[in-house]
Amino acid sequence: MNIANQLVLLLQQNSKKIATAESCTGGLLGGAITSVSGSSSVFDVGIVSYANHIKSKLLDVDTSTLEQFGAVSEQVALQMANGVLNLSSADLAISITGIAGPDGGTPIKPVGTVYVGIATKTDCYAVNLALAPNLTREQIRSQTVTLSLELAFEKAKEIF
Amino acid sequence: MNIANQLVLLLQQNSKKIATAESCTGGLLGGAITSVSGSSSVFDVGIVSYANHIKSKLLDVDTSTLEQFGAVSEQVALQMANGVLNLSSADLAISITGIAGPDGGTPIKPVGTVYVGIATKTDCYAVNLALAPNLTREQIRSQTVTLSLELAFEKAKEIF
Repeated sequence: MNIANQLVLLLQQNSKKIATAESCTGGLLGGAITSVSGSSSVFDVGIVSYANHIKSKLLDVDTSTLEQFGAVSEQVALQMANGVLNLSSADLAISITGIAGPDGGTPIKPVGTVYVGIATKTDCYAVNLALAPNLTREQIRSQTVTLSLELAFEKAKEIF
Repeated sequence: MNIANQLVLLLQQNSKKIATAESCTGGLLGGAITSVSGSSSVFDVGIVSYANHIKSKLLDVDTSTLEQFGAVSEQVALQMANGVLNLSSADLAISITGIAGPDGGTPIKPVGTVYVGIATKTDCYAVNLALAPNLTREQIRSQTVTLSLELAFEKAKEIF
């Protein structure tokens, strides 16, 4: 049973719901969760917030935070996760903001810099996956989906 | 060059943006568009509206339409496409609502019933893909993504 199946099953067993807010993965995280038949009972909403104005409008990300730290930052990942949790009826939210490449990397934030945020009704944290910059765009997006599902599954096991 | 690449290139050449509202594909359409490097310049927002309350809250789908015709209907596909277009800064929107199976099919709406809506600032229409009910969930979702990209590409060629 893959990690998406395990997560959906755990949510179903506890009558809990999940929501997602994605940037660089563009919907693939929602796609992975909803690949599981019956996931409609646990998947509440996914927001693919590529544009910054959408991050602010739908996810309540501060424009000042975007300006100060950039869209790919721990701070924005935290706000995206909390934003989609508040927007939804979910008990657990995952956010992803990163640089999948091949363009867009900088010395401080190279390709492969990916922040994953995990939010519940009581806490929120973010992790920088710091994937290898020589991975392809497809590999970075795919590994990000798997790793963010693992982070969410660990959190779900802890709290549900 | 695959259909996602062709669509992104055409949007880039015309400085136009696209938005998506997905139900049964769960984010895979956004995932396909953003698989193209540089798609951030053309992809505005994607909403994965699995839950009906999200369809109403974010996409302005009438609860009466949901009750009368069901979430998988031409009417809801039209409202989802118009809803995400209005929510966004996009010039073209794609919506998807369907039954990917293996459960959820009925004699009137069997597995494989998938409505794709295409909206621009001046018109909107929806198509029932009516995919074969013996396809797997994965095949139905994958074919829906490809066919909806083709419908959007045809519309984009016509208007841009």
